[in-house]
Order: sequence, then structure tokens, then C-alpha cells
Amino acid sequence: MNQNTAPAKLFFASDYMEGAHPLILQRFMETNLLHTVGYGTDEFSESARAKVRKACNAPDADVYFLVGGTQTNATVIGSILRPYQGVIAAETGHVSTHEAGAIEAGGHKVIALPQLNGKLDADTIERCIQGYWDDANHEHMVMPGLVYISQPTEFGTLYSLEELTKISETCRKHDVPLYVDGARLAYGLACKQNDVTLPDLARLCDAFYIGGTKCGALFGEAVVLPRHDFIPHFFTLIKQNGALLAKGRIAGIQFETLFSEAPGFAASADAPLLYEEIGRNAIDAADRIRTALVEKGYEISFECPTNQLFITVDDTQKERLEALLELSFWEKLPDGRTVLRICTSWATDSSDVDKLIEIL
Amino acid sequence: MNQNTAPAKLFFASDYMEGAHPLILQRFMETNLLHTVGYGTDEFSESARAKVRKACNAPDADVYFLVGGTQTNATVIGSILRPYQGVIAAETGHVSTHEAGAIEAGGHKVIALPQLNGKLDADTIERCIQGYWDDANHEHMVMPGLVYISQPTEFGTLYSLEELTKISETCRKHDVPLYVDGARLAYGLACKQNDVTLPDLARLCDAFYIGGTKCGALFGEAVVLPRHDFIPHFFTLIKQNGALLAKGRIAGIQFETLFSEAPGFAASADAPLLYEEIGRNAIDAADRIRTALVEKGYEISFECPTNQLFITVDDTQKERLEALLELSFWEKLPDGRTVLRICTSWATDSSDVDKLIEIL
Amino acid sequence: MNQNTAPAKLFFASDYMEGAHPLILQRFMETNLLHTVGYGTDEFSESARAKVRKACNAPDADVYFLVGGTQTNATVIGSILRPYQGVIAAETGHVSTHEAGAIEAGGHKVIALPQLNGKLDADTIERCIQGYWDDANHEHMVMPGLVYISQPTEFGTLYSLEELTKISETCRKHDVPLYVDGARLAYGLACKQNDVTLPDLARLCDAFYIGGTKCGALFGEAVVLPRHDFIPHFFTLIKQNGALLAKGRIAGIQFETLFSEAPGFAASADAPLLYEEIGRNAIDAADRIRTALVEKGYEISFECPTNQLFITVDDTQKERLEALLELSFWEKLPDGRTVLRICTSWATDSSDVDKLIEIL
Amino acid sequence: MNQNTAPAKLFFASDYMEGAHPLILQRFMETNLLHTVGYGTDEFSESARAKVRKACNAPDADVYFLVGGTQTNATVIGSILRPYQGVIAAETGHVSTHEAGAIEAGGHKVIALPQLNGKLDADTIERCIQGYWDDANHEHMVMPGLVYISQPTEFGTLYSLEELTKISETCRKHDVPLYVDGARLAYGLACKQNDVTLPDLARLCDAFYIGGTKCGALFGEAVVLPRHDFIPHFFTLIKQNGALLAKGRIAGIQFETLFSEAPGFAASADAPLLYEEIGRNAIDAADRIRTALVEKGYEISFECPTNQLFITVDDTQKERLEALLELSFWEKLPDGRTVLRICTSWATDSSDVDKLIEIL
Repeated sequence: MNQNTAPAKLFFASDYMEGAHPLILQRFMETNLLHTVGYGTDEFSESARAKVRKACNAPDADVYFLVGGTQTNATVIGSILRPYQGVIAAETGHVSTHEAGAIEAGGHKVIALPQLNGKLDADTIERCIQGYWDDANHEHMVMPGLVYISQPTEFGTLYSLEELTKISETCRKHDVPLYVDGARLAYGLACKQNDVTLPDLARLCDAFYIGGTKCGALFGEAVVLPRHDFIPHFFTLIKQNGALLAKGRIAGIQFETLFSEAPGFAASADAPLLYEEIGRNAIDAADRIRTALVEKGYEISFECPTNQLFITVDDTQKERLEALLELSFWEKLPDGRTVLRICTSWATDSSDVDKLIEIL
Repeated sequence: MNQNTAPAKLFFASDYMEGAHPLILQRFMETNLLHTVGYGTDEFSESARAKVRKACNAPDADVYFLVGGTQTNATVIGSILRPYQGVIAAETGHVSTHEAGAIEAGGHKVIALPQLNGKLDADTIERCIQGYWDDANHEHMVMPGLVYISQPTEFGTLYSLEELTKISETCRKHDVPLYVDGARLAYGLACKQNDVTLPDLARLCDAFYIGGTKCGALFGEAVVLPRHDFIPHFFTLIKQNGALLAKGRIAGIQFETLFSEAPGFAASADAPLLYEEIGRNAIDAADRIRTALVEKGYEISFECPTNQLFITVDDTQKERLEALLELSFWEKLPDGRTVLRICTSWATDSSDVDKLIEIL
Repeated sequence: MNQNTAPAKLFFASDYMEGAHPLILQRFMETNLLHTVGYGTDEFSESARAKVRKACNAPDADVYFLVGGTQTNATVIGSILRPYQGVIAAETGHVSTHEAGAIEAGGHKVIALPQLNGKLDADTIERCIQGYWDDANHEHMVMPGLVYISQPTEFGTLYSLEELTKISETCRKHDVPLYVDGARLAYGLACKQNDVTLPDLARLCDAFYIGGTKCGALFGEAVVLPRHDFIPHFFTLIKQNGALLAKGRIAGIQFETLFSEAPGFAASADAPLLYEEIGRNAIDAADRIRTALVEKGYEISFECPTNQLFITVDDTQKERLEALLELSFWEKLPDGRTVLRICTSWATDSSDVDKLIEIL
Repeated sequence: MNQNTAPAKLFFASDYMEGAHPLILQRFMETNLLHTVGYGTDEFSESARAKVRKACNAPDADVYFLVGGTQTNATVIGSILRPYQGVIAAETGHVSTHEAGAIEAGGHKVIALPQLNGKLDADTIERCIQGYWDDANHEHMVMPGLVYISQPTEFGTLYSLEELTKISETCRKHDVPLYVDGARLAYGLACKQNDVTLPDLARLCDAFYIGGTKCGALFGEAVVLPRHDFIPHFFTLIKQNGALLAKGRIAGIQFETLFSEAPGFAASADAPLLYEEIGRNAIDAADRIRTALVEKGYEISFECPTNQLFITVDDTQKERLEALLELSFWEKLPDGRTVLRICTSWATDSSDVDKLIEIL
């Protein structure tokens, strides 16, 4: 492998295509030969947990660090549901489509509901849950036992605080827990249109995870359970799901870093966390690119306020862009045109954005 | 967290209590901002696979990088077995005892057989398999569908080439695959008594994994399937088991480094791999400590030729040692004495061994 | 319990509300104290298997007798699929809706597709399977591994031979097996519009079951696997699924009786089987009722050629009918009217049909 | 099939080789064309539940009728355990050995413990549970979540009331439920040495089942859960496990009959239930045979007070007996001799016992 031959093309294909934020690697170097105990009971993990609890304004929360998104979803969902229950999700939800059947492999149905721009609404959820209980045959059916949503969604869209509050109220009315997949949460939190904070999530949800893999870590997702012991014996369930890191510290160090103050700010209550700064970099880049796309007359496939931009192009445009850029193929439309995704991230360089805009 | 207050005690408690071999972190730094594709199809992972194949003399092998041991065992075993089959293991095997029921959670019985010093023998396996087929009621029973052993075992002991060959022959006679858990394989390969090489494993087994987590990596286990496509659709099964890294490169980089030549040796066919060097460091330390223990009259609990040493001590000895050293509690004996484990690793410092010997 | 107070209302609510065809009980009496071996290897089961094979023109078929529909579906589907696969079904299919998540409990996704009158068509199946393979991310998704349809469907509709042939061709083109749920198969076979015979099913499907529970038996479903050993170790899988009868003979006796010539016919190649006669009784009754419904101006909710009739009634009609009849509530329409189901069966008495028609 | 050629050999091979007690078939005939609702909510099932509750002196008990033993064990055990728990059983327990891995297929480990004559003792259970909690690594291990025993055991032996009480106390001390498999319970209840009654079981256990399949029914096991709603949503779990009978009445009728007064006794509080009479017939026959075996100098393999007798014979004896009798092969001993099982049942004819004794 000779990294000197790395492609010269500009890279906007995805947000998990580089290593980690440099401060994380620096911290690995500093702590490398310290001895710690295993399985997440080390001091780095404890410190990271404290910082996450503080950021979420959830002093009693249980916090666990797992490795990746599918693993986290399968472990959390399988641990909350009882055997006779399934999980409600948008039909476009990650658990419905792109986790290779992990939820079903754990024994549970994904109850896939219609969505708009990747989002479920409270009424749809209400009809599903109430419909179950109203059905004369409901004892022969799968009981809705959990609601799964993503923030941002798989389409990069966001639930507003009002929408999330309604969903939360619906869930609580029926005593069905609410779980939020935050694989790209940094990019949601940093979005100008966003009004849902970490403390809101902790207040309105029963479980959520703060994504690391796509937000500047080498890997890792922080599961937050706002109420202590909401999932009894969760440690053992994590182990059983193959999701327990022997060297728990390597997840702890990453989240400790991400939830510390960003460098270059005076230490103060207002100083942003590195996790927030990382999101802001991606959002700023996306905003600049979005403006350029509009100015240059590109057709925006659908509105997405976070770090993913979708454009509809014909074959000539596609060929030209793909010669110069690494983008993501999204889908082929019936009219022959193509939807491409431009994705920014914590690692997006401002000068690369300049070059991209020039090319567009 | 203030790492300046790290314990002053000498640390011989386990082999996964530090970060990673410095060369791995250095390689992370060098490659951090390069863009690669995800899910293990990147050039670092490809290079690592090529190096593993070469070291195993298994040019057709499929090689996959997973995160941890329990995850690897559950994924490999669950992917090989059919629903009516179970896996044979020593009753002390890791899958029998310390994986929180992960194999059973995947739907399969662990058929636990008697062992000696952590090892199964070919005759025991033969009796179990033949006994199944001879039983008039075998269609009502779980069929042995795989044999699981560890090299080194959970007690640090090793199968000789002769023993492993016999087990392999027994398995092949009955068309039952053989799978070897190599969580601590580096420490087995480096052991002076060892005569089982990586090419031997590739020749005699149907699946095995080369442990990284306990052998110098931050995390990671390399699954080797010597025959191509032995497990069809294994990529999807890995994903379903939550074991697929989005940033596959971070496992690839680690194994690429571990399977490159150790520094300080002239590049040649004879130059040891870093993985071998890492093992040697731990074994050299363990050998020195073992000699000292014998000289000083300690009771060796049972013979272990690799990087784990077990001593039986009374309460006075225990108190004295634990005041100065971080060791592992192993078990309380009926006579009131205690078995303690001293464990060396890739990270064990020679001067710490000097100090330990002085203390003993 | 005093059976003298049984409801005086006419009973057309379902087809599993009585015991068994009297010839079955008679046969139980005749054979009651004979000694046989267990688990379905007895002479009654062997004889029943031979008769089923003959009726299906499938001399090499494996035939197994299970207890009920959900159990049969879960056992067959779970035995055919590999862990990375799911089963395609109509979104109204029994496995999609009314089996309490049994398929998912076995680890597999039900891939629910749009339907018309309870039926899937070959094009929909083709798009699903081809779409999977065409998707760049298909290795992260559940592979279609089996197609499940019902004959008759949950709505009482039937696949024509042409439709079934196209589905079978689509399946074979993609090497995806086809499984037919025949819970009410007797009522399909007896239907005048039907052109799909048992030999057609054996020729076009990889697995199907001939329903007993709803077709005159106390319980029992006969699984037919036209190709010998299509599901290796299926006996053990049946046992593991809790579906193996210790007294296998009690299923064997029932299917031996159902697949013997109906009484009152001269023994000849043309004499109908009891199973066929049972179906005819229900279909004749349904046809008479359907004619009466049309003559009396009832609104038929949707066309159903077999033993289920669906009518749309307003509250006045509903009240009047439910005072005199036991029918099945089907659903409440948005306009406030109700769909009711009238169901005939092997047990429907001709004089009760007269009385029903008078009431209508 | 010509039943006139049924073997002339005397039949003592097992207790599930005939149909059902004649009163059950008679009751099927009487009720055959009555219409009832499905899924066990019919009046026969309700009546049977009331009779079982009364016999168990457990007025609040939930009672469910399932089909067979393996199904019942898998459904009950899988419904009680949480994913991180396993079930303690004797290593000779039916769930440990002869259920084709059904418990593991449901995701749970069978924690197999040493036994004596098929029985666990309270101390062994105590050591296992306490040992789990004392183990420093217990969070990495399977938590004992249920204790499974059989009464009578697989060897025909019985727990005394004192033994059962101690086990129950151990379980309650640790808050681990106790479940008793009563596949052959009628033969235990009728045994002269037995001092454990149905009310004792209801008082000391959290779940047990009263076996029908081996005790005079065509099939069927009555699950008794003394405390109402001990297993929430058990109906749906039964359905999901494929264990729900559409025609629930056919199980209800059988248990209603078995738990009615035996015929030929004046109706009184003292009149035995048919279930008790059935047991007595088998026990009386077994007692007569046991006496004869001893008188004739046979070697009794091990003491069994219920309806199973085990004798150790040499090849000459074996050949002679097997020419005249249908017995069960039990096992081949290292010394070349064979253990045979003689089994009596509800169906054993007194004159056949006379003939058997003559032959012995």
C-alpha cells in the first residue's frame, strides 16, 4: 500500500472516510502506556460518562460506549423489547433497511410505518399503537413495544422540538419507550434550523445514542439511558451482543475528548464542546455548498438542512462531476436522471469546499 | 481524570490494560486524513489481508477483521452451524463460560466436554461425535456441528502439533469443521515449547482467528477461513452480528502493522513480524519470572508455558504481593489459599520485570 | 359445562369451530388400543404419507405431519432460510400479520410486499428479488430467500395455474424456493374456478402444506416437500420447534382418513378423496349463499370464490343479522358500515344453509 | 395398513403407544358437532381450567393447554427467562438432552448440573446460584434465571415433599422461579412412595405442567401458573411458539375428562379423578411386575418407584425377552450387558401383566 497514490479527486462521498479528529489521536498517544482496568470501568470512561451526563443535563443517566450503529441499535432494541414485542420505525429507517436483518435476528419484528422525508409523525405512531390495541385479534399480533426514530434521519432531515415532543407524548401515553438513533447527531445539533438539544433528548426519550463513528471518532457510539437502570443487566446484554470492548478505555478516551471543550476557546461555561465544533465545521461547509448549488441552478432533490446534500443530475452532469469528485450515488430516477449525494464532515477542509464550488 | 495519579504499583494483571503498540498509533497518525472507502474494502485492509494470507501460507483464504473475541466467536460459530447443530467446546472454554451466553443467544448449544488443563483431546471429541450418531435417539438431540478449541487455552496451555493434528483428523473423519480461538495466539506462537505455526493452523483448521486485542492492538481479531467461501455471505453475517466496522481501515491498519516486519531487523525473509516480536517480549518476561518463582520456592499452581503464570499463595503472601503489585485473582482454594495470576504482555517493560523479581 | 345450552343461533362464523369429520373419530375408536411406535414412524402415518404422495403425484416427496398453521409456517420457513435471508410475503399474508411475530422470533425478516385481493404477482416478486441484487448496498440488507404465498389467500381468493406458474418461474430463475400455505386448501381445490391441482403444487413449489385444522381434522397440517431431502434433518428441526407429536399416529390417522376415498362412492380411480368431498360441501354451501346474497341485493365487499363471503352492511342490517347468526366481524369501514364474513365448512349443514338464506 | 397384522408381542415399550383413554374419545364423539369459539376460550377449556385449579387448590392460577412436552418446556422457559438468563437443569434432564436444543434455539443456556438418579438437590442448586453471584466475573456469565426439574424424573424417580420444599426454599431465597416438568405426573401422583400432591406443586412452584400425552390423552399438557399473570402476555407467547391450538376445545375436552371423577365411584369429595385412576393402573401393574422381577432373580438396574422398571440382562436373556416382548432398549453397559426398560401405562391390561410375569 502506497498512500502517495491516493486519489487526487475531491472527497465528498461520506462522513466516515477518514480516521479521527486529531485531538483524539493525540490523546491516544498521551495515554497509551497507562495501565487501566478493562471493560469500560477505567477512569477515562468514567470521565467521559460524567461529561456526557453533564452535556445532557441528565445526572442519573446510565451511559455506555458501544462500537458501531447497527450493533448499538440491535443491542438497545433487543434489550428493551420483550419477546412478544416489535419496534416501530419509519420504512426508510436504518433498522428497517440497512442492518442486514439484525433486529429480526434478535427475534423482533420491525413494524415499518410510512414516513415523510425520513420522518415519522406522532399521528402515524398513534394510529399504529392504538390500532393494535383496538384490533380484536391483537393477541395474535406483534405488540408495538418501542418507537425508533433517527435524528437526523437517514435523509438528513430533522425533527423539530415540537414534533419530537408530540412523539414523546404519544409514546408516554401508551407506555411505549422512545429510542433515538443519533448516528449523525453532531450534524443535527450544529444545524441552524435545529431546536432539539441534548437535554431535550434526555428529557423526551428513554434511550438514545450519540454517534461517534460518523462524527469524528475512529468508532464508537455513546448510549444514554436517562433513567438509571432502565435496562437491567445492560452490561451483560452488551457482552452477549459482542459489543463489549475489552479495552473500554479506547471508547472512553474518544468520548472524553469529544465532550471536552473545543480548543481555541477560553474555558468557560459557553465554550463549545469539541463534538459541537465538529458538527459546525460540516454544517458550515454544507451551507456554503448549498448556496453555490442554488446559485448555479442545480436541482436540489429534496431539502436537507444538515451535512448531506442531494442533487438531481443528468448523465452529462453526472459524468463531469464524477470525473472530478468522489460523491455518493443515491438512486436512479425513472426519468433516467440520477440523485447524487454530497456529504460534508468534521474532516471537510475549507479549501476543498472552495475547489468544489469552483467545479460545480 | 488526572493520569499523574496512576497507580505506582507494578502492573501484571492482564494483557489488555494498555493502549496499542506504538507503531500502530504512529501509523494511525500517518494515515489519518487519507480518504478511503468503508466496510473493510479499503487499501489498508486489503494489504493486511494479503500479509495475513502470506503469513498463513494460505493464498486462497478469506480474511475478515472483527472487533472483539466474544463477537468473533458468536459470529463465526453462528455462521457455520445449522439450526440443528451445536458446538463442541471444553467445559472451561471461553464460549462455555465467559461470553454471557452469546452462542446460545444465537440459537446454538455449547456441548461442553471434560478437559485437562484447558485442553480437549481427540478421543473425547471422537466419543462425543460417534456417540451422537450411535445413539438411537440422536434425531432428538443436538448434532455436533463444529469443534471449538483455544490456542493457547484459557489456562495458557498449548496444543502440540501432534495433538492438533489428531483433533483435525477426527473432525475431518466426521465432516465436522474445526475452529480455533487465537485470542492470545501471539503468546502461543512465541512460546519455546510451541510447534504449531500459522500455516499449520491454516492447514488443519476450517476457521481460526488471530487475536489482536490481547496482542498489541487497540482492538481487533483477524478471522482466517483457509478455504475461500467456506462461509457464504459472511460479510452480511458480520453486519447482522453488529461486527462490521464502518471505518474498516482502523482494523486493517492495525493488522497491516502487526503483520509487517518488526523494526530493527534487516528486511529479509527471516525478519520476524511485529506480531511475533510482540509475543516474544511477553514470553521472555514470563520465562524470567517463572525461573524466579521456582528459585524463590513459590508453588506453581499448574504448568503454563505462555504469558500467564499461576501461583498458589497463603494469605500472608497474598497480602504482601497485592500491596506492591497489580495481579489477577484467579480462585480461592478449599484449603483457604489463593491462586493468583501473573500476566505479561507486549507492553511489559523489562525493568518492571526486574522490579517484580526483586519483590517476589 | 352444559352443552344443552349451546347457542341456538346459526353458526357461520368460521371453519374451525367444530370437532372433526365423523369418519376421523370413528377411525380413532377403531384403532385406539393398537400399539404403535411413536414420532410419526407408525404404520398409520406411513400409509397417510403414501396416500398424500399419490394424490400429489409426487412419489419422492417427503411428507411430515405437524399440528397447526403458525407452527408449520415457522418450522418450514425457519428451516429453509439461512440466517442472512428473509421470506417474501404479501403484506396481508398470515405470516406478516397474525402469527405473533413467529417468523421474526426465529430470526428472519418477513419482507412484506404490496398485494391485490391477498395475492402477490410474479412481477412484484421479480422487482423485489432483482431490486435486492441490483442495490449497491445489498450486502447490508436482508436477502430474499423464500417466497410465501397462501392458496386460498387470507381473503379467500385463488391463484390461477397461470399465475402460480409465473411465480414459480420467477422463483426458479432466481433460485429462490416457493412455499405455499394451504391452510384452507380443501376449499381451494373444490372451487369451480380453481385450476391448480395437488400435482401442480408439487410440480411448481418447493414446499407446501395441506391444511387439516380448517378442513375437517381435529388438528394437523401435512407438509409436502416434493424433492426428497430438500430440508436436511427436518425431523430434528420439527422436534426443536416443538412440533413433533409423540403419538404421531393421531395425525397420521387423520390424514390417512382424509386422503382415503370418500364413502358412498364406488371404489375407483375416479372416486373423490374425503378431503375433496369436504371441500365440496363447503363450496356448494358458499355458492348457494352467494347467489342468495346477490338476489337479495346485499353488497358483496369483494369477490371471493371459495368458502368465505364478505358483505358490507349498515348498522341496521348488522344488528338484525347478528341477532340471528354467528358471523365474523371483519372490519369497520370509514363510512361507518361494517364488513362481515360468512364462512362455510366441511361441517356446514344443508338445512342450516336453507335457514340462513331465509334469514338474509 | 392392515391392523390385523399388529404384532402379537406383548407391549411394554412405552406409555405413549396407544390412543387415548376411551372416555376421552367418547367425549369427542358426544361434543363433535357443537360449535365453539377457538383458541381455548371455549366452554370445555374453561371447565377444564376450573377443574385443574380445584385439583391444585390454586383458585387464582392461570392454566393453559399446550400440545407436547418439548413445546411446553420451550414456551414456558423462554417466556420466563430474560435474554441474559439461563435455566438450571439436571444434566440428564429432558431439556438438557432430548429436546433437540429447543431451549438454546430460544436463546438460552441450559446450565446442566450433576444429578443423582435423575434428581437435583437443593445444595447443588444453591452452590450454582450463589457461585454465580460470588464470581467476580459474573457479569460476563449466564445468570441462573429458572430452575427446571422433572417429577417423576427421566429415570422414573421422585422428589419427596421434603426435597421439593428445600429446592423451593432455595429458589425463593434467590428469587429464582421453580418450574416442574410433569410429563409423567399421573404416575408420580399414584405412586405409593409419593408424598407430593398437586396442591404442593402449586404451593412450591412458580410454574409446572400436568402431562397428558403420556398419561391417557391423545396429546396435551396443562401448564399451571399458580400466581395470576406470572407470565404477562403468555397467550401471545404461546401463539408465537406455534403452540396455540385453533380448536382449543380438543385439549380442553381431554383435560376436562381427565380431571372429572373416574367412573365407577360414587360422586363424592373422595372420588378419585380419572387422572388419578389412570396413574393407579400403571403403578399397580408396575408393582406386580417389580415383585415378579425380584422373585425371579432379575437384576434391577436402579430403583424406580413409578411406571418404569429397569433391568440389567445378558445377551441370552435379552434375546429371549425381546422375542416375546416389546421393551425399550436403555443402554449398553461396559460389561456387555444391556439395560432394558419395562414401561406400564394407563393402557396396560391386567391380563397382559399376567402373561408378562409368566414369561419373565
